[in-house]
Amino acid sequence: MEDEHILCERRDGVLLIEIRRRDKKNALTNSMYTALASALAHAAEQSAVRAVLIRGQEDLFTAGNDLEDFLQRKATDESQAMRFLRVISAFEKPVVAAVAGHAVGIGTTMLLHCDLVYAADNAKFQLPFVNLALCPEAASSLLLPRAAGHRKAAELLMLGDPFDAAKAMAAGIVNEILPADRLMDHAFAKARALADKPATALAVTKALMRRPIRAEIDEAMREEAIHFADLVASAPAKEIFAAFLEKRPVNPAKVHGEGR
Amino acid sequence: MEDEHILCERRDGVLLIEIRRRDKKNALTNSMYTALASALAHAAEQSAVRAVLIRGQEDLFTAGNDLEDFLQRKATDESQAMRFLRVISAFEKPVVAAVAGHAVGIGTTMLLHCDLVYAADNAKFQLPFVNLALCPEAASSLLLPRAAGHRKAAELLMLGDPFDAAKAMAAGIVNEILPADRLMDHAFAKARALADKPATALAVTKALMRRPIRAEIDEAMREEAIHFADLVASAPAKEIFAAFLEKRPVNPAKVHGEGR
Amino acid sequence: MEDEHILCERRDGVLLIEIRRRDKKNALTNSMYTALASALAHAAEQSAVRAVLIRGQEDLFTAGNDLEDFLQRKATDESQAMRFLRVISAFEKPVVAAVAGHAVGIGTTMLLHCDLVYAADNAKFQLPFVNLALCPEAASSLLLPRAAGHRKAAELLMLGDPFDAAKAMAAGIVNEILPADRLMDHAFAKARALADKPATALAVTKALMRRPIRAEIDEAMREEAIHFADLVASAPAKEIFAAFLEKRPVNPAKVHGEGR
Repeated sequence: MEDEHILCERRDGVLLIEIRRRDKKNALTNSMYTALASALAHAAEQSAVRAVLIRGQEDLFTAGNDLEDFLQRKATDESQAMRFLRVISAFEKPVVAAVAGHAVGIGTTMLLHCDLVYAADNAKFQLPFVNLALCPEAASSLLLPRAAGHRKAAELLMLGDPFDAAKAMAAGIVNEILPADRLMDHAFAKARALADKPATALAVTKALMRRPIRAEIDEAMREEAIHFADLVASAPAKEIFAAFLEKRPVNPAKVHGEGR
Repeated sequence: MEDEHILCERRDGVLLIEIRRRDKKNALTNSMYTALASALAHAAEQSAVRAVLIRGQEDLFTAGNDLEDFLQRKATDESQAMRFLRVISAFEKPVVAAVAGHAVGIGTTMLLHCDLVYAADNAKFQLPFVNLALCPEAASSLLLPRAAGHRKAAELLMLGDPFDAAKAMAAGIVNEILPADRLMDHAFAKARALADKPATALAVTKALMRRPIRAEIDEAMREEAIHFADLVASAPAKEIFAAFLEKRPVNPAKVHGEGR
Repeated sequence: MEDEHILCERRDGVLLIEIRRRDKKNALTNSMYTALASALAHAAEQSAVRAVLIRGQEDLFTAGNDLEDFLQRKATDESQAMRFLRVISAFEKPVVAAVAGHAVGIGTTMLLHCDLVYAADNAKFQLPFVNLALCPEAASSLLLPRAAGHRKAAELLMLGDPFDAAKAMAAGIVNEILPADRLMDHAFAKARALADKPATALAVTKALMRRPIRAEIDEAMREEAIHFADLVASAPAKEIFAAFLEKRPVNPAKVHGEGR
C-alpha cells in the first residue's frame, strides 16, 4: 500500500503527506492514489494523528492525473483516484493543504475536500476537464458552485483556463496566499493549531459542517463517474489523448464531428 | 415568433442575440420575450450553434419589463417572460451575457441563468421588486442567496437600490468587469472559446453543475409566481403602477394602509 | 419577560433593541435571551413595527453567552438562547444588526439570521466553540458554509480565532463596514428604509429567500443541539470551564486524554 512518491511523516500530532515525484511534475499514478488513501485510512485510526497536512514542494503541488498511467488502466480496474477521493471526502479529522506551483485537475479538485488550504503566490490551478473532452470529478460540479457561485464555477470548469491563487481565493478554494518560502511553515502551524484543539469537538464541528451536503457529495461523485466513464471512451477524448501521446496537434474533425 | 427588437446573428458557432429597442431603453415586451424564447429553442436544436451570447449595446442592456405592456396583460395570459425564463434556465448549451448600462429587474435576474456574465464598468443593476410592491422572480430568491449569501442577497432584493458592476461581481452575478468599449469583443471571445470546446463534454459539465439545484430552481419559480400574482393584484402594487403611469407621486396611505 | 439589560425603543417604524450590560461586556444571560425573544415575538404582532434593529453600543456588541450564567443552568432548563435563536430565525420582518467591538459566539452566530449587518471598523468577531470543547450552534454549521464556502467557514469555526470586519464581510456575515461613529446612524437609516417599503412585499421576499433552507435550518439547530449537550457535559469542556472560573491554566491531559 506504500509508494516511494508518497512520503509520510508524523510531527506534533500532524501527519504530513508529501507528494514527491519531481521528474513527472508530481503527476499521480494509480499506485500513488492507493498510497494516499491508505495513509488517510491509517491516520483515521491513529489517535496520535489529530490533523493531516497534504503538500508537494514549495514550487509544485501536482500536475494531476498521470496521463499515461490513466490511459493504461482497464475500464474494469477500480479507480484508485475515486477511492482516494471517497476517503478524503469522508475523512473525519481536519485536513490542511499547502499548494505551490501547478495544481492541475485532481490537484485542484481534492482541495474542495480539505478544510484549510494555503497557497503560495506562485500557485497555478487548472480544471481542464472540458479541454480533454471530459467532465468534472470529485464532486467539483457540486462543491465549486456552492463555494464560488455558478458563474465563477462555470468560468473555471467550462473555460478550463489556468488561474492564479487570487482567483482561487475568490472562488473559495483557498484560505490565504503566502510567499512561497513561507508556505510550508505557515500551513504546518495551522495544522498544528488544529491538532492542539479538543479532538472530539473538532470532529463534531467538521461532521456538522459536512452533514447537510454529505449525501449530495456522494451522489455528485456517482453522477460524475457515470458521465466520466462515457466521455473517456468517446471519440473526442480518445483523439485528444492520442494527440497528446503522439505529440501531434488534435484533429478538430475528430473532436467536433465531421458535420461541423 | 420573431420581433424586430430581438436581433439574431450566428458567427463562429455563437448565436448572438441582441436586445435593441433604443427608444424604450430596451424594455422587454411580451412579444420580445416570445422572440427570445424562440431564439433559444431554435438554438437548442441547431448543432451549428455551440454557445449563445445575449447582449444589448455598449451603453444599455435592458430597463427590464416594459411596464405599460406588463399592465395591459390579462391575468389569464400565459406570461411569456416566465416562458423565456424556463427556457433559458433549462438551456443545455453555454450562455454568455454582455451587460452594459442599465440591467433592471429581469435584466439582472436573467443573468442568474447565464454561465458567464461580463459587465461594462458603466453597468447599473437593480432588483426593484419590493419597491414596486412585488417579489423576486426568475428563481432569484433561490439563486442570489446561493451565489452571494443571504445578507448580500437581502441587500439587493430587500433594499432594491441600484448597484454597480463591482457589487454585482462581489455578489457572484458577474465574472469580470471591462471598459465599455471592450465589452462586446471580450464577451464574444469567451463565447467563441466555449463554442470551440468539445460540445458533449461542455453540455455534460453544465448539466452536472445544475443537476443539484434543478428541482429547486423550478420550485422557486413556481413559489415566486404564486406570490407574484397575488402581489401584482394588491392595492400597493396597483397604486405604485398607477402613480407611475399618471406621472404623479405615490399615495403612501394606499401603499402602507390607512392604519399606519 | 423584560430585563434591564435589553432596551427597546420604537422610532419611525423601527424597533430598536439595544443590548446594554456594560460591566459584563454585554454578555447574555438566560434572562436577557428571554427578553430578546419576547421583544421579537411582540414586534411580530405589532403592525407599527416594520423592521427591527439589534445593536449594542458603538464600541461593543456582545461578548456572547455569560459563562457563569451558562454553567449554573441545569441541563433540564429549556435553553432561552435556543428559544431566542428559533424566534429570530423564523422572524418574518426584516432584521438589521449594527455590530461594533466584540461580537463573540452567539454575538456572531445570531448575525447569520439577520438580513442586513453593518459593522464598525473596530468590530471583532469570534466563533470560539471548538476552543471551549463545544460545537457550532444557531445553525452556523449550515449557514456559515453556505455564505462563505466550506474553507472560509472551516477557518472561522475550526481555528476559532478572532477576525475583523473585513474578514466577516468576505465571509458573507457583514454587508458593509463603517467608521464606528457613523455605524448607528447608518444602520438605522437602512432599517428605516426597509420600514418604508411595502410591508407585504418585503415579508414575502424574505420568506421566499428563506424557504429553500427553512427545514435545513431547523434540522441543523436540532443536530447541533444534540452534540452541544453531549460536549458541554464532556471532560474537556468541564476542565476548560473550570479553569476559566478558577482563573488557572487548562490541564492538557484533561482536555486531550492521558494517552496523548
